[in-house]
Amino acid sequence: MIIILKENAGKNECDSLISMLNEKGVKVSGINGVNHNILGLVGDTSKLDIELINAQPVVERVQRVQEPYKACNRQFHPDDTVVDAGGKKIGGGHVQIIAGPCSVESEEQIISTAEAVKKAGATMLRGGAFKPRTSPYSFQGLHGEGIKLLLKAKKATGLPIVTEIMSAEHLDLFADVDVIQVGARNMQNFELLKQLGHSDKPVLLKRGLANTMEELLMSAEYIMSGGNNNVILCERGIRTFETYTRNTLDISAVPLLKQRSHLPVVVDPSHATGIVSLVEPLSRAAIAVGADALEIEVHCNPSKALSDGAQQLKPEQFEKMMENLVPMIEFCGKKLG
Amino acid sequence: MIIILKENAGKNECDSLISMLNEKGVKVSGINGVNHNILGLVGDTSKLDIELINAQPVVERVQRVQEPYKACNRQFHPDDTVVDAGGKKIGGGHVQIIAGPCSVESEEQIISTAEAVKKAGATMLRGGAFKPRTSPYSFQGLHGEGIKLLLKAKKATGLPIVTEIMSAEHLDLFADVDVIQVGARNMQNFELLKQLGHSDKPVLLKRGLANTMEELLMSAEYIMSGGNNNVILCERGIRTFETYTRNTLDISAVPLLKQRSHLPVVVDPSHATGIVSLVEPLSRAAIAVGADALEIEVHCNPSKALSDGAQQLKPEQFEKMMENLVPMIEFCGKKLG
Amino acid sequence: MIIILKENAGKNECDSLISMLNEKGVKVSGINGVNHNILGLVGDTSKLDIELINAQPVVERVQRVQEPYKACNRQFHPDDTVVDAGGKKIGGGHVQIIAGPCSVESEEQIISTAEAVKKAGATMLRGGAFKPRTSPYSFQGLHGEGIKLLLKAKKATGLPIVTEIMSAEHLDLFADVDVIQVGARNMQNFELLKQLGHSDKPVLLKRGLANTMEELLMSAEYIMSGGNNNVILCERGIRTFETYTRNTLDISAVPLLKQRSHLPVVVDPSHATGIVSLVEPLSRAAIAVGADALEIEVHCNPSKALSDGAQQLKPEQFEKMMENLVPMIEFCGKKLG
Amino acid sequence: MIIILKENAGKNECDSLISMLNEKGVKVSGINGVNHNILGLVGDTSKLDIELINAQPVVERVQRVQEPYKACNRQFHPDDTVVDAGGKKIGGGHVQIIAGPCSVESEEQIISTAEAVKKAGATMLRGGAFKPRTSPYSFQGLHGEGIKLLLKAKKATGLPIVTEIMSAEHLDLFADVDVIQVGARNMQNFELLKQLGHSDKPVLLKRGLANTMEELLMSAEYIMSGGNNNVILCERGIRTFETYTRNTLDISAVPLLKQRSHLPVVVDPSHATGIVSLVEPLSRAAIAVGADALEIEVHCNPSKALSDGAQQLKPEQFEKMMENLVPMIEFCGKKLG
Repeated sequence: MIIILKENAGKNECDSLISMLNEKGVKVSGINGVNHNILGLVGDTSKLDIELINAQPVVERVQRVQEPYKACNRQFHPDDTVVDAGGKKIGGGHVQIIAGPCSVESEEQIISTAEAVKKAGATMLRGGAFKPRTSPYSFQGLHGEGIKLLLKAKKATGLPIVTEIMSAEHLDLFADVDVIQVGARNMQNFELLKQLGHSDKPVLLKRGLANTMEELLMSAEYIMSGGNNNVILCERGIRTFETYTRNTLDISAVPLLKQRSHLPVVVDPSHATGIVSLVEPLSRAAIAVGADALEIEVHCNPSKALSDGAQQLKPEQFEKMMENLVPMIEFCGKKLG
Repeated sequence: MIIILKENAGKNECDSLISMLNEKGVKVSGINGVNHNILGLVGDTSKLDIELINAQPVVERVQRVQEPYKACNRQFHPDDTVVDAGGKKIGGGHVQIIAGPCSVESEEQIISTAEAVKKAGATMLRGGAFKPRTSPYSFQGLHGEGIKLLLKAKKATGLPIVTEIMSAEHLDLFADVDVIQVGARNMQNFELLKQLGHSDKPVLLKRGLANTMEELLMSAEYIMSGGNNNVILCERGIRTFETYTRNTLDISAVPLLKQRSHLPVVVDPSHATGIVSLVEPLSRAAIAVGADALEIEVHCNPSKALSDGAQQLKPEQFEKMMENLVPMIEFCGKKLG
Repeated sequence: MIIILKENAGKNECDSLISMLNEKGVKVSGINGVNHNILGLVGDTSKLDIELINAQPVVERVQRVQEPYKACNRQFHPDDTVVDAGGKKIGGGHVQIIAGPCSVESEEQIISTAEAVKKAGATMLRGGAFKPRTSPYSFQGLHGEGIKLLLKAKKATGLPIVTEIMSAEHLDLFADVDVIQVGARNMQNFELLKQLGHSDKPVLLKRGLANTMEELLMSAEYIMSGGNNNVILCERGIRTFETYTRNTLDISAVPLLKQRSHLPVVVDPSHATGIVSLVEPLSRAAIAVGADALEIEVHCNPSKALSDGAQQLKPEQFEKMMENLVPMIEFCGKKLG
Repeated sequence: MIIILKENAGKNECDSLISMLNEKGVKVSGINGVNHNILGLVGDTSKLDIELINAQPVVERVQRVQEPYKACNRQFHPDDTVVDAGGKKIGGGHVQIIAGPCSVESEEQIISTAEAVKKAGATMLRGGAFKPRTSPYSFQGLHGEGIKLLLKAKKATGLPIVTEIMSAEHLDLFADVDVIQVGARNMQNFELLKQLGHSDKPVLLKRGLANTMEELLMSAEYIMSGGNNNVILCERGIRTFETYTRNTLDISAVPLLKQRSHLPVVVDPSHATGIVSLVEPLSRAAIAVGADALEIEVHCNPSKALSDGAQQLKPEQFEKMMENLVPMIEFCGKKLG
């Protein structure tokens, strides 16, 4: 950590800052500049509160040298983490295709969709039981009943299931779920993250609409610092000024998160743009940059879907896409499933 | 609501769309264009699911004419809502100054700060007991103990208190709090909003970092549709590409939210920029555009603060600011307190 | 075009609006809603000024149905445009790799780099002679002299050259250049675009840092409406809140621009992130979604580069990347060169 | 300037970096950290190329301590700059109201509007002769003829005139103009800025839609480093994700630019939102935070305007606004005109 002092910083005030820092167990070296003096801190600065230092009267600015995350940092864990998700591996050269409807709507709907996506090559099943909707007047999901239907679809097809949680109060309902998803709007719901840290279930953590990659990693750190290392990161598009697409898929996040962290990374091309015709090209791009899984919305009858109909593929569209995607996965030296 | 049909939309498909719409209780008029046909829907379209219509195969695009919010919409409630917050009025020509530390840290700290801000003219007290922090390694607040200390400060000074909730599970702890704050990161924590809708406590709802004004109003709608009309909106800066300030205060939101909605609007200039020297000018701007209250961070000793030290005013800075601000409030035809 | 009238719109005012529209050659059909009346315009609305209609006192809002661009619109030109760039084809199943230094610095530098990139498989040469730099104190390029050196490098290697123009006043200097590049900061320098419209040189038009795809297409329209159809679009990253990368590559722009327009699309992975280690993965993504060319910064000695050293590949890095990229181009059914 | 070295930086490479830096006239001090070594540079680092240092193989990151701008930096010029604009002072306790139409359309239109705004209290006249329009099919302005009409309006009313330039080629036409405006889309048209640096005319430099305050100051530096110190900064809204307003007015920019720079700052509330009803509240906010002038669009007949009708005030609206605004200017201790 580097501290840039104010121009007019007095000697006594600087000395008392240095004492305070020494008390916290770091050594301080100084450089005298023309306008500004600079302090370099040596030692474990990860426990120093950067805001506290920033608030000292003599401090102009503080610059971190080390990353603020540890548990998810590749520097300290060079090997890729591979998460076991109901028997399917996320990371480590595997590519999982997690497909299914936006919302679970009925037994018939979820089972027929599950069977259709399995037939087309999907390796895991997604479906929302708790739905975060902008409007209180929109369909909010089937809740506990929706999870029961997902478990029936799992039984029918063998596909492990991924579904979203919206409050720690509902955690008991997720006991038999294979992967618990934290949606973009809850990426910084820290109370929820803390509770998930005490579980050992795999958590698929979606990047928030306006959250930086560093904030995503810090949210992963919340879960991991509680003891749960089964964290899967997910890029699903960020909010920008562009209006042709619902969000802007930040494809650079895949290789960059993998450089900084050892956690697997998933891409959700359906939410990233909200446009059916872009799902296949973005899926290709995601595989090409090294994504460990794709999460894709497929619905037996999108024009009857209770949510997000316009971005869900029909089974026949998904099947056609998979025909093109599987050779690409293999070309990239990875293995489906 | 207007529906723009695809160029190649067949007659049968259009007819079945029109039937579906008629079944939902709206009348449909059509316009034949050169390339596109257009349907105009007449009747109460607020219960129609825009996504469902968008997902119909013949639909190119849907355009809403009515706003998607009702309870908070000024069109249906022309008069300003005035919220009673522990005896202080928010809205209706009053200006409340809600001051206090970022976090409650100790009895001595919160009581001395409360007394100092009261002496300088503050009319309500703020202080965080539950703190949403990016890093799990940062100070997380005193939780229930912090709320107890706030209540002691209220007893000592008579100032009504505002403090943030992070999970519906903690709602019982807020029984004696005057205003419950929902932070920017929880603006779309819909489970929390639903629970607050069943309370009758005033809720100060902060705009999320990357949320539009419409989404803010839809989140207010979640609370109000549950039966709680005591909602106060808060603009606290949005996330942009600018780096000199932590966030960008969207000052236009104040008059615009007041045009669209009847709810009172608060501005938080401390979080909006994270820079002490900008708190006074932005407070002036907020009063000038018609804000009903300001929320300002003040700490007895910012250089010892456990969070956000760099954006908290010292009591003497706050006092000086209030000396300039009170005449401005009166110039604008409003009344402090 | 659809016009939504104000609630209180009087009959006389509506009639005079309809007359005005009829005079402009469009037919008007009306729909009477509960709160709002709606007008649908039939005919060629591309010459109507949307702002003028918006400014009429009875108008609440105007919604376009047709796209505002014509010449570059795929609807009117279903076939892909293939641009001939000094004998190399951009579009139509070819992939061009345009490599070279950020700035032309000396004869030795540009020729040795040109030879190195050609050897590694590049099919065109890039290099800046006029450099748009944020600071007036940074290296501004060699100007006319730089273009002469590029032409020497072309002579030495046979690679067609791409270089940036910053003002129409310099157009004469570009007489022997193969492709004239318009940089992101000049995407809406409309005076420059108009001049380029009177040329017949291929123009590589980069998307501005904060410009929508529609604005990019409208800028292409400026060039094409002047008579020059040799326009190549380029996605090079947009400005967002993310700080780990310099810009955010909007990979969705490639397939979406190709759906809306018949023009070829290039990706610049070097400027998109400013990070050497991301150039290869993003190049793979660009090929996977269908880019017609890549523009990549390569410098013989990046640590001596006069601009953008940190994002330029060394020749050996570029060579290694090309070894991986060429099979991918072929896998995607395209042809290098 | 601070240089953070890579973890594995070898001694020889560090020594050669230090030699290179010494050759450029700066002294280097080092700090040995646990993982990273740090170099602090002492001396005049404003001529060092940060990109070049960043590109050195042993460098992890470079952090600037000094600001990259000098001529416009308040640190080196503590007193406010006051620009004389045709006899009117911009800065120094004066507030100028620059009003007029978006575009000059005819002699009758510009003279009647000029007379109307003067009567209402405006102190300068604005009007566009060269119009940067997104679409090539929109009205592009009257060019040289428009400037002649503005000069007639100046003669008729005595109001100094402000009008926009789009290319250095047109500079001669601006010989009698009082203030040359550089629009948001040309803020980084560096060739134009350089030419304006050789003039002595006041330049009103608008912040680009997606440009940071630092980039705005660097563009001012382009003009000033050419010898022209008569630069006026203008905040006119930035591009964000919000859709209710055309842009987001960054009101914090006013006090912040004035802290960092000695140049006067103007606010344009018309372009900032594109909504007539927000012009007055935002004008109040701008005065409250210390703006030195406002630029406001007023048109005698907005519903006939050839551009931007929806954001232009009618003379009677402007007059009513001025009645409220003048007392506010005086309350803030400033003087109109």
